[in-house]
Amino acid sequence: MPTRAPSRPPIALLSDFGCRDHYAGVMRGVIASLAPAAPVIDITHGVPAQSVIAGALALRESWRYFPPATIFVAVVDPGVGSARRPIAIETRAGARLVGPDNGVLWLTVEQAGLKRAVELRAARYRLAAVSTSFHGRDIFAPAAAHLWLRAALSALGPPAAGLAELSLGEAREGARELRGATVYVDGFGNLVSNIERARVERWRARFPSRNLSVKVAGSAPVGIRATYGDAAEGAPVAIFGSFELLEVAVRDGSAARQFAAGPGTPITVQAGG
Amino acid sequence: MPTRAPSRPPIALLSDFGCRDHYAGVMRGVIASLAPAAPVIDITHGVPAQSVIAGALALRESWRYFPPATIFVAVVDPGVGSARRPIAIETRAGARLVGPDNGVLWLTVEQAGLKRAVELRAARYRLAAVSTSFHGRDIFAPAAAHLWLRAALSALGPPAAGLAELSLGEAREGARELRGATVYVDGFGNLVSNIERARVERWRARFPSRNLSVKVAGSAPVGIRATYGDAAEGAPVAIFGSFELLEVAVRDGSAARQFAAGPGTPITVQAGG
Amino acid sequence: MPTRAPSRPPIALLSDFGCRDHYAGVMRGVIASLAPAAPVIDITHGVPAQSVIAGALALRESWRYFPPATIFVAVVDPGVGSARRPIAIETRAGARLVGPDNGVLWLTVEQAGLKRAVELRAARYRLAAVSTSFHGRDIFAPAAAHLWLRAALSALGPPAAGLAELSLGEAREGARELRGATVYVDGFGNLVSNIERARVERWRARFPSRNLSVKVAGSAPVGIRATYGDAAEGAPVAIFGSFELLEVAVRDGSAARQFAAGPGTPITVQAGG
Repeated sequence: MPTRAPSRPPIALLSDFGCRDHYAGVMRGVIASLAPAAPVIDITHGVPAQSVIAGALALRESWRYFPPATIFVAVVDPGVGSARRPIAIETRAGARLVGPDNGVLWLTVEQAGLKRAVELRAARYRLAAVSTSFHGRDIFAPAAAHLWLRAALSALGPPAAGLAELSLGEAREGARELRGATVYVDGFGNLVSNIERARVERWRARFPSRNLSVKVAGSAPVGIRATYGDAAEGAPVAIFGSFELLEVAVRDGSAARQFAAGPGTPITVQAGG
Repeated sequence: MPTRAPSRPPIALLSDFGCRDHYAGVMRGVIASLAPAAPVIDITHGVPAQSVIAGALALRESWRYFPPATIFVAVVDPGVGSARRPIAIETRAGARLVGPDNGVLWLTVEQAGLKRAVELRAARYRLAAVSTSFHGRDIFAPAAAHLWLRAALSALGPPAAGLAELSLGEAREGARELRGATVYVDGFGNLVSNIERARVERWRARFPSRNLSVKVAGSAPVGIRATYGDAAEGAPVAIFGSFELLEVAVRDGSAARQFAAGPGTPITVQAGG
Repeated sequence: MPTRAPSRPPIALLSDFGCRDHYAGVMRGVIASLAPAAPVIDITHGVPAQSVIAGALALRESWRYFPPATIFVAVVDPGVGSARRPIAIETRAGARLVGPDNGVLWLTVEQAGLKRAVELRAARYRLAAVSTSFHGRDIFAPAAAHLWLRAALSALGPPAAGLAELSLGEAREGARELRGATVYVDGFGNLVSNIERARVERWRARFPSRNLSVKVAGSAPVGIRATYGDAAEGAPVAIFGSFELLEVAVRDGSAARQFAAGPGTPITVQAGG
């Protein structure tokens, strides 16, 4: 991956605020007020509403492609205003992560390594009035702006131990199958599973002469192809997508609709005859 | 709020152009062509199509969080090409506002104070060809870019008097109730009313020993809580949201769907037994 | 159009990645990693999924409004990973275009003029690992960043001849009508046809004393007006829109819904009695 470190790392935003409302824009306004020279990049604000797992996965699949010192702000926060802590994390890989301690940062922490974490309690690094419903504006955006202005992580609050963890669930091995589940449906209707490419490759070494196929719940078998383009129009296809996770897609269509599938729908890889 | 004034204030854009089309992108292109160094921030382009009231409310709830000298461009313009005037406003608070004179700027003018307003008539501050359907590109974006380049407001056209006003409507007091209405449905399906927190607090002082509850049209009463997180999953809850307006939400769901409600649906606060 | 050339041209992005996922954000991350000082402007990421024609049209209607040396990246790529070539183009007008060779760049090439084109094969201007499903991240964003950093177009790969072309189809003349079709439905539900204003003006010179009206498939005739604002609420109207193409719109409504119309639906201009 690119390694040219910018002198001014970006602040990268991810949330479930959607394209419709002004919430993401207000976060950008707060950052521009505090740190006018900070470059701000939107990863996405279209995480399905209150879906912590989708936000966590999108952040995990994005962080590596940003400059090393990027400050990430991830706000998918169904428990806003309740007991969950607002936190900031420094990773071993150099990035900073800001968001609620509800697991949305966890999958990235697993990859980037935890160096230290703090709870965002210091009043001087929040807005003067903190609402109970919009910590993205009142706590998270100001924290990111102050980190960008070189505030020390430790100045933002006391150390935070015992961070909330998150798991995609493990694919399980059966006699001749690998059983996983849909963890995410993307905007094209592709079903993203928790079955990693590397896992499939290790497992299939036991059935070298067999063809693999994929089932969505009790569907007819779908072939694994190298690219979307290998499928006929309207036909389902399984590929390893940009997440390096097994996905089921329908060319020029929606697998979610065609299979009436969503998060949790079983996806199984089978070693055929 | 933040007060560190940037040397280069941003241009902040708000419209109902949506995420789908290139219209917002073309406005950014026009600004980049005229004022390449101007930082541009999208507040949102997802205002419900042609909903002047939703745009006005989103701008009112956003402007305060931006740097003081920000140039705001708000384009929700169902009457584009007809008699309504294109205008630019300087507020007492220091911001500039650019958009159609149809009320979309009004709620912000009420808060930020009107210093002066002009009608955008000067040909040299428009694109060479002005269409009848896309004043965001041809008139508003160029005006913002030229203001950013330090054109005087008065150079953009003659003074504009009698600006179009807009009202959210007043909540009305009954015997033991405060009757308002839904003025806006946000992207989570939350019903945002025209009942302000301060208004409720003044009114409830008359019923100190009573509990308050909220009804959406003829629904069962919904409790007022401090945060979304205080509601059970799938249960409705009333809170004062980021607008400081009473909102009805459903945790992990949509109040608009659950109550079959939308703009205009009555929302009533009741002092109970 | 604006001509003040910036010293740092922007990179302008257009795709069908949608607002929901992190794909567009990851492209921005790759650019920020390689060329941290490059200004990035989103034209839109809301092109209807895999609709090459809609993407081509949006790019054609946008490029002219950007600074002359802008680097455009257009990723609408149903054949990603298959035989279609990844390309970069230098236009006579000075812009660079990056994307798949499937026609999405073609309508812009027709207007801006083809100077030269290359196939993006040079490994050093791609990410180290190139996936089969996300060339926006692995090939197109890096190519744009390197062009911005002044890499020569010819360094990116060998010349590409025989580019894929794309046509909107021609409107055809009948006795007293001009028959075209819907080529695009915008986010307001407006039906955009392939009938150009200039074409209509030439044609109508043959019927100077007749009124023109428009039909959507077999609908009742719709009048051509100067602006959306000239229609009554809920009534259909035909105008020449921001594309300089004949559009049918419904004020405060959706023409696509009202006429049950979509891409391909016939739109006809008639010279009446």
